[in-house]
Amino acid sequence: MSISEMDGLMLNDALSRIKGLDAAAMERAKAHCDGLIKPTGSLGALEEIAIRLSGITGEVQNSVFPARVYVMCADNGVASPGIAITPQRVTSVQAVNTALGKTGVAVLCAAVGACAIPVDLGCAYDITHPGVLSRRIRRGTANIAEGPAMSRGEAVAAIGVGLEMAELAAKDGVRFLGAGELGIGNTTTSAACLSALTGADEKLTVGRGAGVTDEGLILKRETVRRALEANAPYADALDILHKLGGLDIAAMCGLYLGAAIYRIPIVIDGYISAVAALFAFRLSQESAGYMFASHISAEPGYAIVQREMGLSPILDMRMRLGEGSGCPLFFSVASCACAMMGGMGKFGTDLDGITGDYLKAAPTSELFAPPQKK
Amino acid sequence: MSISEMDGLMLNDALSRIKGLDAAAMERAKAHCDGLIKPTGSLGALEEIAIRLSGITGEVQNSVFPARVYVMCADNGVASPGIAITPQRVTSVQAVNTALGKTGVAVLCAAVGACAIPVDLGCAYDITHPGVLSRRIRRGTANIAEGPAMSRGEAVAAIGVGLEMAELAAKDGVRFLGAGELGIGNTTTSAACLSALTGADEKLTVGRGAGVTDEGLILKRETVRRALEANAPYADALDILHKLGGLDIAAMCGLYLGAAIYRIPIVIDGYISAVAALFAFRLSQESAGYMFASHISAEPGYAIVQREMGLSPILDMRMRLGEGSGCPLFFSVASCACAMMGGMGKFGTDLDGITGDYLKAAPTSELFAPPQKK
Repeated sequence: MSISEMDGLMLNDALSRIKGLDAAAMERAKAHCDGLIKPTGSLGALEEIAIRLSGITGEVQNSVFPARVYVMCADNGVASPGIAITPQRVTSVQAVNTALGKTGVAVLCAAVGACAIPVDLGCAYDITHPGVLSRRIRRGTANIAEGPAMSRGEAVAAIGVGLEMAELAAKDGVRFLGAGELGIGNTTTSAACLSALTGADEKLTVGRGAGVTDEGLILKRETVRRALEANAPYADALDILHKLGGLDIAAMCGLYLGAAIYRIPIVIDGYISAVAALFAFRLSQESAGYMFASHISAEPGYAIVQREMGLSPILDMRMRLGEGSGCPLFFSVASCACAMMGGMGKFGTDLDGITGDYLKAAPTSELFAPPQKK
Repeated sequence: MSISEMDGLMLNDALSRIKGLDAAAMERAKAHCDGLIKPTGSLGALEEIAIRLSGITGEVQNSVFPARVYVMCADNGVASPGIAITPQRVTSVQAVNTALGKTGVAVLCAAVGACAIPVDLGCAYDITHPGVLSRRIRRGTANIAEGPAMSRGEAVAAIGVGLEMAELAAKDGVRFLGAGELGIGNTTTSAACLSALTGADEKLTVGRGAGVTDEGLILKRETVRRALEANAPYADALDILHKLGGLDIAAMCGLYLGAAIYRIPIVIDGYISAVAALFAFRLSQESAGYMFASHISAEPGYAIVQREMGLSPILDMRMRLGEGSGCPLFFSVASCACAMMGGMGKFGTDLDGITGDYLKAAPTSELFAPPQKK
């Protein structure tokens, strides 16, 4: 897709740097995996993860750590007491709490040996804690129910922050990324974006988020409908992103694209993270090869993104916290996939080879004979 | 359920020692969990795991490690080149390879910081490697298609090995158990057991195991049908277990019961492990409170056990290796659940408390005001 505006030059350049997976490395990985002492394919998704990692890095053997979740923090003008159950102040507070290691994503990352880094793209409060990376573009977005959330240039700048974070991760030797967010009201912006991207009715894209009431759900749907009307028509993905999205979604979109540029695997968390992934996918289909779905979000719209992108989440935890909290769970599973490739014995040496020292032949040598070759 | 035989006295004693979960501890855990800085219930299955762990241990804060998977190894007389794709020798070889750290379960355990211990209940070969715990009851079972796999006393003895392993784990301070197996032909014995336990047609309980052909699948179903006829009628769960089961299944059944006795949480792996769990459940319904389902097995019969016991596996990996390979993946997730309970900030101190030092008030204090109390 071509981005014609001047401010899109950086983005066009970025998109042109995304290449496909390394098919030869994937073949080598598949051959190695099939030689491990197990029935072919019997470790299912673990094998698929391992093989795709090889396609990303070009290596048969990979590792997951150091792993890092960037938590993109920003407030949304659309948030109001009716459609969000949490006061807007909480975005800023939780950005700080992530730096302090106290949020869900921070604690789960620590539990698996990964790291969660909050990035302030535009919280309502000025954040002075040094653990929150400051990349403020504007103080929250405008209300999408009344007009564009931000300018096209601001959206591109937020994408640029995501690209910058991926570059930083690459420099730091990070081997696995995760896309997280904090932004009161961002299930509403995500729903609006998803409806505009796919044409799906807002009844299908709007869910209860952190837990709105029946009344709140109706208001949330009305708000999304108003936002879709107020900002129509939509020219392309970037047009939808700046009109209906948030700085958090735009930055995550940039992070996915950056992960693909620097060939770092990246985990999709829940609904908001998945909508951001869909933006990246629309800008560059090849970026999807670098993404891994972690868990099925409890938000109904997640299933739409799943179908659009052909995602196969491996976890069903009924989680709906966001923040990137599903990413560390995936890191653990992926590290098992890497361990499988590196640690398991091989047919031949480790299967046919073992007898003398460790086994005495059974009286009849076998209780039954091995299958005959056909 | 009452086991009347003399050899069942030990089992009756064991069953009488299984108590229910600690409801008061679960309430304390729920209250603690609801006080963490996240929307109530938003960490889904992680919260449920944490709360049930409290019901098992009586403590609000728990940990997963040291964690141990016992891999119950035994050969099955029913195994033949037609219904199993792997020569029987492989049971013994893989028992040794587990001790050597080279099998799937051993590698995945090592990757998450757990330990896999193979126990020989009756492999076709005499195993001389000291890393394989020797508890041989007989050299493989008889062919269930022709008569009982073993005597009732032998089945009880195998259950006793499982109980012993749980006791050993308790003494060693093990905090999480997993039930694994190695036994060529054991998807066939599992299918026969499940059909006898539930009345389900063998078309529903027989799958492809490690990967039999269409021809093999038909033969496998015929074999199960013959076994069900040859051993009918069935008096109770123990009757089914000794006639149609294997030493591996019986030992795993004992491990589940022992986990409940010693109040150690235990993970169910795939199909065979799940059928063994169903035996334990039939012997003591309360034992199910100590069990956690890890992943949805690719074997079709798994869904039947899932319905019977109301299991909620959290992983969908299309894995069909067995060995206990799903257990270490669950250990990781459970350790995240424990980290959540121990590490996350609390409402009040960590949410309302943070301002001064870390945040400067937004110009209008909030972009929108917090919701009014109704």
